[in-house]
Amino acid sequence: MKILVTGAAGMIGRKLCERLAREGKLGDAAVTSLHMVDVIEPKPPEAGFPVKTGAADISQEPAVRALVSDKPDVIFHLAAIVSGEAERDFDKGYAVNLDGSRLLFDAVRRDHQASGGAYKPRLVYASSAAVFGAPFPEGITDEFHLTPLTSYGTQKAIGELLLADYSRRGFFDGVGLRFPTICVRPGTPNAAASGFFSNIIREPLAGKGAVLPVSDQVRHTHASPRAAVAFCIHAATLDTSRMGWRRSLTMPGVSVTVAEQIEALRRVAGDNAVALICPERDELVERIVGGWPEKFVTRRAQELGFKAEDSFDAIIRAHIEDELGGRLRV
Amino acid sequence: MKILVTGAAGMIGRKLCERLAREGKLGDAAVTSLHMVDVIEPKPPEAGFPVKTGAADISQEPAVRALVSDKPDVIFHLAAIVSGEAERDFDKGYAVNLDGSRLLFDAVRRDHQASGGAYKPRLVYASSAAVFGAPFPEGITDEFHLTPLTSYGTQKAIGELLLADYSRRGFFDGVGLRFPTICVRPGTPNAAASGFFSNIIREPLAGKGAVLPVSDQVRHTHASPRAAVAFCIHAATLDTSRMGWRRSLTMPGVSVTVAEQIEALRRVAGDNAVALICPERDELVERIVGGWPEKFVTRRAQELGFKAEDSFDAIIRAHIEDELGGRLRV
Repeated sequence: MKILVTGAAGMIGRKLCERLAREGKLGDAAVTSLHMVDVIEPKPPEAGFPVKTGAADISQEPAVRALVSDKPDVIFHLAAIVSGEAERDFDKGYAVNLDGSRLLFDAVRRDHQASGGAYKPRLVYASSAAVFGAPFPEGITDEFHLTPLTSYGTQKAIGELLLADYSRRGFFDGVGLRFPTICVRPGTPNAAASGFFSNIIREPLAGKGAVLPVSDQVRHTHASPRAAVAFCIHAATLDTSRMGWRRSLTMPGVSVTVAEQIEALRRVAGDNAVALICPERDELVERIVGGWPEKFVTRRAQELGFKAEDSFDAIIRAHIEDELGGRLRV
Repeated sequence: MKILVTGAAGMIGRKLCERLAREGKLGDAAVTSLHMVDVIEPKPPEAGFPVKTGAADISQEPAVRALVSDKPDVIFHLAAIVSGEAERDFDKGYAVNLDGSRLLFDAVRRDHQASGGAYKPRLVYASSAAVFGAPFPEGITDEFHLTPLTSYGTQKAIGELLLADYSRRGFFDGVGLRFPTICVRPGTPNAAASGFFSNIIREPLAGKGAVLPVSDQVRHTHASPRAAVAFCIHAATLDTSRMGWRRSLTMPGVSVTVAEQIEALRRVAGDNAVALICPERDELVERIVGGWPEKFVTRRAQELGFKAEDSFDAIIRAHIEDELGGRLRV
């Protein structure tokens, strides 16, 4: 099984490739090669199969056609300009997130058609909860419309529509995953408005302080990086005949208030960790976060076998195991 | 007020231009010029203001930029490859319906930016009930998701997403209209699967026979050509500050069974007209029509002042007045 991962230098892409390298298979099939691409060349993991890495701009047609030319069996299309940058740079966001996805889908279509229909890969597309925009019902169901309030969310929603149409046409076999917020994000605190959801867990676990810029009554839905990788693997291996033509799914997650996040941290790491969280309200962050979905009703994804953590405690423990070698530093 | 109409040779485009010519104004504003374009050059109506006509392929960027270069105040973007053709010719459908719309939106954006934001036209975009795909709830509400089952519906749904994002960004002031089936379509019977909804009314009113290829229990939603033109005019003149960023609306219509259509025909034109309808089931047409929406709950459009006929009788009478000079021929 030949695998292509776009956006392979990103957090989920990197962890996905590491898991493929570690396990050597995808579902029941042995991985025979892995092609990792991103706008900067990704670092390959140690693997028992050939790993190719490359830098490519997916808004450029020749580069995209070259990616598909050796006919990967499974394509994980994770490459994207992130939300803030797509909002600041209109042209770049549309070029990468819309045109890039369409170029990739069309490259597969051309190879499908050139092969007389024999070539028809599984294509896993990273969408986002940003396809939804306020006002929301209490829980967002599988039939709630997509009314994004950012250019990023718009581009992701358009990708979902293309994915469904190209799948219905038989050019490839697509599955779109609307990721919830990934928490706990490893690395250093970042400037994204959602960063604090991770900061208030990751930093105290490392014995460092973290700012909480919103009320602890803010509710949000989370899944761990480990769960996000598992979503990708499951999407690549599930029986899509059970999906019909509605090919994008809201992924399950843990819907908790910030206060519940903090109590989970207390249970896992004690009062000393919680004491490192410093409330410092930030009106701008509060306003942005106020427009985000709080809770999803992810019946379809769950029926199709997608699983997230069942508590925020489990999300914290996954971070300690995967990023801290199982040791608290507080 | 300068007006541009794309798709001006189509049925709705032509009737819209005729009404603008007849009334000389759009809302309270006098029309100062009208530019009618289509892939074939439209015929201009008699008007008390200058009417320019032209042939243009809206999938070609220079042609599209030229359309917008004299900064129309209102743009009615009705041009599209129809459903059947977009399904048969994948590339052409995407080129005209997706790329054409995006080129038009981007041409406006460039002129908006070049003007320092001063140029910001109203843009009325013709979408379609084809953005919806089965399975459906009993009535499709304003919050039901878009899951098109045709490439045409996919392209229209993508146009809606772009329209909303470009409006949110302030490049123009967009309103998208999801038209129900237009009935009674004037002209000769056509091969579209939906054609019979009009044929079984129009042909008997002209003293001619018509085939009914489905059960008379099939339910469908209709609006007259006159109502469709009124939707366009209202969309061009309404106060969009009441819409928020959800810029596309399902238009109201009359939801009736074929049996109810036939009884309306009997009331308006008598038993002799009804006797001209010949039931002759066609499995293919039944299957296609079976996947279509039956009924919409169009609360938002109605609150914003969009009005359709209140009965199928009124739809038939509109046809008799507008197409038959008020006279029955049966």
